[in-house]
Parts: sequence; structure tokens; C-alpha cells
Amino acid sequence: MSEVIQKGKVAKKTSYLMTGVTTKEKNEALALIAEQLIMDQEMILIENKIDLATGKEKGLSESVLDRIMLNQERIEGIAAAIHQVIDLHDPIGEILETINKENGLNIEKKRVPIGVIGIIYEARPNVTVDAATLTLKTGNAVILRGSSSAKHSNIALVRSIHRALENSALPKNAVQLIEDTSRETAGELFRLNDYLDVLIPRGGKNLIDTVVREATVPVIETGAGNCHIFIDRTAEKEMAEQIVLNAKLQRPSVCNAIESLLIDANWFNQHGSDLMKKLEDNGVQIYADELVRKVIPTAIEATEEDWSSEYLGLSISIKVVDSVEEAIGHINQYGTRHSESIITENTAHAEMFLQHVDAAAVYHNASTRFTDGFEFGYGAEIGISTQKLHARGPMGLAALTSSKFQIKGSGQIRN
Amino acid sequence: MSEVIQKGKVAKKTSYLMTGVTTKEKNEALALIAEQLIMDQEMILIENKIDLATGKEKGLSESVLDRIMLNQERIEGIAAAIHQVIDLHDPIGEILETINKENGLNIEKKRVPIGVIGIIYEARPNVTVDAATLTLKTGNAVILRGSSSAKHSNIALVRSIHRALENSALPKNAVQLIEDTSRETAGELFRLNDYLDVLIPRGGKNLIDTVVREATVPVIETGAGNCHIFIDRTAEKEMAEQIVLNAKLQRPSVCNAIESLLIDANWFNQHGSDLMKKLEDNGVQIYADELVRKVIPTAIEATEEDWSSEYLGLSISIKVVDSVEEAIGHINQYGTRHSESIITENTAHAEMFLQHVDAAAVYHNASTRFTDGFEFGYGAEIGISTQKLHARGPMGLAALTSSKFQIKGSGQIRN
Repeated sequence: MSEVIQKGKVAKKTSYLMTGVTTKEKNEALALIAEQLIMDQEMILIENKIDLATGKEKGLSESVLDRIMLNQERIEGIAAAIHQVIDLHDPIGEILETINKENGLNIEKKRVPIGVIGIIYEARPNVTVDAATLTLKTGNAVILRGSSSAKHSNIALVRSIHRALENSALPKNAVQLIEDTSRETAGELFRLNDYLDVLIPRGGKNLIDTVVREATVPVIETGAGNCHIFIDRTAEKEMAEQIVLNAKLQRPSVCNAIESLLIDANWFNQHGSDLMKKLEDNGVQIYADELVRKVIPTAIEATEEDWSSEYLGLSISIKVVDSVEEAIGHINQYGTRHSESIITENTAHAEMFLQHVDAAAVYHNASTRFTDGFEFGYGAEIGISTQKLHARGPMGLAALTSSKFQIKGSGQIRN
Repeated sequence: MSEVIQKGKVAKKTSYLMTGVTTKEKNEALALIAEQLIMDQEMILIENKIDLATGKEKGLSESVLDRIMLNQERIEGIAAAIHQVIDLHDPIGEILETINKENGLNIEKKRVPIGVIGIIYEARPNVTVDAATLTLKTGNAVILRGSSSAKHSNIALVRSIHRALENSALPKNAVQLIEDTSRETAGELFRLNDYLDVLIPRGGKNLIDTVVREATVPVIETGAGNCHIFIDRTAEKEMAEQIVLNAKLQRPSVCNAIESLLIDANWFNQHGSDLMKKLEDNGVQIYADELVRKVIPTAIEATEEDWSSEYLGLSISIKVVDSVEEAIGHINQYGTRHSESIITENTAHAEMFLQHVDAAAVYHNASTRFTDGFEFGYGAEIGISTQKLHARGPMGLAALTSSKFQIKGSGQIRN
């Protein structure tokens, strides 16, 4: 039996043991994990160094190596994050709906764990702990499948988690790591319908696209963000500039940073060159339509591909439009349904934009950078769902739960 | 361009027009559809006769032909059902969550249409109207793909729906039917990720399994029900008998009828033969383990396959168990996570069963036949979800909606 199938079977069985655990037991187990990681620091850092050395040999970029890298401070940060999860309200057991029927049936819709959650992710070993603790807090069993570049670190982290769970009321196998990081094991996970209730990819567009295309298990699509800001005719100059610079520059590599700017023609004629200059002063390469290029000769001609691009870096595509309707149409055509913002003093235009733009988060006069589980006050983030089923936008703990109808009767039969 | 892709494109565009329609406009359009179907009755029945004649030639069974068959009464029933949908509360626009941040951002999570919904279904032409009206009521565009055996009826019904929509404020193309019922069009629908937000199969296990296996679009799995009743040691004899007979016999062909019975050994020794006799008197064929067969010689030996079988007819598998734990284990191993019931006077056992059995609906002292959108008071039923994401159990209108965060600011940027 392959590692994936064997661990899938164990996860399914373990998920049934998890339906009985209490909030207290879960929080105690999480505290033990935080403690154990600190205690096992040395072992974890030794294994992490092996990954870093292998990565260097393979010629991984500095930024990827930095993502893989652990040190004392980062491990302490991981442990601190676990205590934040402990402090979160446990959603399991909440009554979502109560229906009392005339025939005496009492129907309660209760929040329950999903069961077995698969997480497939790239590079960062902190995701190993993050995913494990969030799924444990919601009473699930989890199967982790990290990337080969963090293999030794991930094995070490899960070894430490297991040590902690062995001293807890939770079954150790509630957290399992697929150690074989070959393509085959990813493929097996995609089709593990018998044991996996959902698979969540965390990583770049390629990973997510592969999962969506190949998985037969239910998937929660996360992450890709070709986000836009539309500067409407009546936008205040300073507000527009500040929001655009924030959304593009505050952290260009993340999914809620903007990749594309749409500007009303009138506004552009008045204030466009100032804004363009500020972007260029900050090192942003502009890809633009003809109107923009007339004013900004250093701008490169935008192709069809640019309108669809998630640069994740210091580039931006810019288009001048004639109306809010044109902006909405462009966003619905090229956007990835993540985060979109309009800057305007015109309330009717703002309402139109908020209503008709098809995205998880739509903003009026604010930066798209706020689309984030912590910013929304969820205290945690499993990812940002860009699909429309189950969860949309920043996913907190509730996204890792399902529901179940519990019906109590006294002999009722159906007529 | 193929029919599916062309209609997919149109549906996507149309879905954006639907984000602006009001409850009043939707209800008026639905009333026009109900009226138009009655007016077009003759045309519809002529086309239905073609399907019936073709079906007879092909040797379809009487029960399948009956499902295809329309008459005046059934069309009036379909129109009446539309008026029930009109009377339902429109969930679109509901505020699901409000978050006011310290920085002045106002975040509202609003209920919105999903967008484009695909429904793939078998035989019954009434599903055509049912699916169309429920998706319209929730502001979605729908792509219908019925079976070849009801092709002419479905085309006629959608023609009538289009006539009604042309007189309404809703775009006619909010409802589209794939007229080519070849396998290829089903396959195209399965992979229509660019235009389809979700695909819902309505039909038998084969259809659902195929969709789950082949679809890359998000799917809501519905329907398959290998439902159990567990008669515990302390179950009242009469109550147990009544519930079992109701759940098996009241409508054996539906998904919430029971297929399997687990009986505590003590209870079985005292009352088992009486219950077996009552089942046999009602024409039920028993497949059972050795203990049962010792008492009921007419029972056939149950195989591994029987424990997994959804007979959908007058058959039942029966197993004697030693404990509530064994019953729960058996159900979690062989059940399809639909509806499961325990008959017991022991509250601790009931609680254990309700908590640990992994199913959309778990019952104490009631028939599994109540798992139904109408019985739960939703006033409609899109199907019964047996998956754990998005919707679980009977799906009302809310299952056809998604959500969207609308965030209003005054220039907020992220630090």
C-alpha cells in the first residue's frame, strides 16, 4: 500500500476519534505543541540546515531560500502563533439553525469538523505547523504534503508535533505528513476521494491550477490575485495616490497587492502624469495602453497577457477607461475574483462597483491590502478563497468546518 | 465553437446582468413562466409524446416512461410549484456578517448569487422547470443538461420559459438548455471551468459518480443514500417497528429510505423475528448475517456488497451487532453520509450516535424519511448534499448563493 493511501486510511479512522475531543483537550494539545517546538529547536534547525544546503546546491534563489530558512526567532514566532490559535473561539458545536416542527421533531444544525483535510503547499515550513494547528483546533485530521525543498524541516516539525500529541488527549495521527515529495504522491492526494474530504492548495498559481485541473476530491481554490484599482473621475487626487501606492508597494509579492490600474480618462488628463511619476519613482515598471504611453514614454505597451498578469512584483498594467461600466467590464473579464477597489466621491458609482464587480472582496476608497484573515478580525487565515462555494475571501476557522443535522424525535414517521 | 462553450460564454455574461435584478423582477418573471407553461401546454405535450414514443421504441421501462410523461395535471403541478418558489424569501442581499474596524473600515459580508450554475440530470422533465426557477430566484444564470430520453420535452419547456422571460425584466439567456445530449456535451460541461461556477448532478449513483470523477469544475455531490437504522437494546418494540417499516416502505425508491438495519443482539433475541416477519409480509427481501438467518430461513446471506448497497427497492440488509459502538463503526464504514437513525431509550447512546455518526442527518427515534428540504421547512429542495463543503443535507435556496465582502472606507491604507 502506498504511503498516501495508508496515511489516508489512518487519517479517516483518526477523524472519527476527533469528533469526541473537547475544546480544552484541543487547546492543551496546541499548547504542548508550542512548548515542544521550542524544546526541539536544535533538532529542527539541524534538519532545516540540510534543506538549505540542498537548496543552495540546486541553485534555489535567495528569496526561496529565505522562505525555507528557520532560526530561533522564527521558531519562537511559530510557537507564538499557536498561542493565538489557542485564544480563538472554538467554532465546533455551535448551533447554526434550530427548526422545531409541528410533529414534535427538533432539528438542530450543528457545526462539526470537516473530517480529513489535505493541505498541499510550497516551500515555507511554517505552513506545516500553521496548517496542523488550525485543523486540530477545528477537530479535523490533517494530511500535509509539503515541497521537497523543505522536506527535512517538515519531517522534523511533524516529529516534534507528534511528540507533543503523544502527551495529549488527541490522537497523534491527527497530523500526518507525506514524506515522499514526488509528483506521484501529489497525484495520489488529488484522487484520494475515499479518505479526503477536502484538499487545500497553498502556493503559487501553478500549484493551484494543477490541483484544480487534476483533483477529483473537493478543492478550495485559494490565492491567485490579479487585483485592480479603478480611479473614478471624482476620485480625490491625494487619496487615490496613497491607496494606489499602498496597494502596489506595501508588499508587492502578495496576492492582495494590485497588479492593474484603471483610470478614468478625465482624472488621468488632470492627475495621471503625477501618479505615473510616483510609481516610477518607486521603481514600478508600467505596462500601459496608448493613452498612457503618450504621457509616459518609459511605459511599455501592454499586451493582452498583461491585463491577465499577476506580476507579484514591481510591475503594473495601466489602462485609461471612459466609464465605471467599462472598468467593471474589464475587471470581470480579466480579474481573478480576489480583491478590487474603486476610488470615487460618487456614491452611485461606488454602489455600482460594489454590486457588479465579481470578487471575494470589493472596496470603496480603501486599499486592497486589507483582504486578510487577521485584518478582518478572524484571528487566523487558512487562505483566501477565490472560489464561490463553501468559503469566499479570507477563510477563518469556520472555513475548516462543516455542519450536520441532529434530529430528535419520539417515534415520528413520515406520512 | 461548440454548443456548450458558446452557451457557457453567454451564461457568464448574463450572470453579470443578473446581479442587478430585484426580488420583485425575479418574482414577476417566475409568475410569467408559470402562466406561459399553462398557455403552452399543448405544444409541450406534443413534444412530450415524441419522447414517450421514442422511449417505448427503445424499450424503456414503464417506470422510466412514467417519469418522462407529462399531462395536464403534471404541468399544472409544475406551475403551482413555481408559485411556491415565488412565495419563498429571497436570500440575495442578506447581510451575513458586519465587521467595523477601528480604522473606520466597514466590512459587510453580503449574500450574492453564485453566478453560473450547471445542472445535469436524468429523465424527469419537471427538473428542467424546477432547476430553472430555483436558480432564477437566487439571481443565477443556469445551464441545463437533461437526458436524451426527455430531449423534446425539455426543449419545449425551455422554449416556453424563454417566451415568458422575453416579457420580463430578466434576460432570456439566464436559462439555457444544452440540446445536444451526447456524452461529449456532458464531458464539456465537466470541464467548463471558465464559465461554470458549480455543477450539480441530479440523478442516480452512476451519474453522480461520473461527475465527481471527471469534473474539474466545483461539484455539489447529491443523493446517494445507503441509510441505516440502528435498533438499540432499549428500543421500544412498537416504535422501532413503526419507524423501520416507514423508513423502508413508505417510498422505497428514494434516497432517504433505509437500505440497512442494525439490531442490538439482545433486542433481536426478544423481538427480532416479529420485525423480520413484518418486513417479509410487506414483500421485503432480507439479506442478512448468520444470526438473522438462523431465525429467518428465507433470508439470503448478506455479502460485503450488500452492506454497501443502495437497493432503492424492496430489499434490506440486516446485521446483528453487540453495541452502539459497533453500529457506529459499521455505519461510518459502509454508509454514504446521508441519513442515519438510532432507536433507543438510552440517552447516552443516542448522544453518542448523534455525535459520532458521520452523516448529513442523524436521527434519534425518528424515520430517516424526514431528510427533505420541504420537511425541514426550506420550501424548496435543490437536492440533498452528501458532501461536507458548502452545503450538507437538504439544500434550500441558500445553497444556490455565495457571499461577497463589501468594504467601505475613507482612504484607509495598510501599515
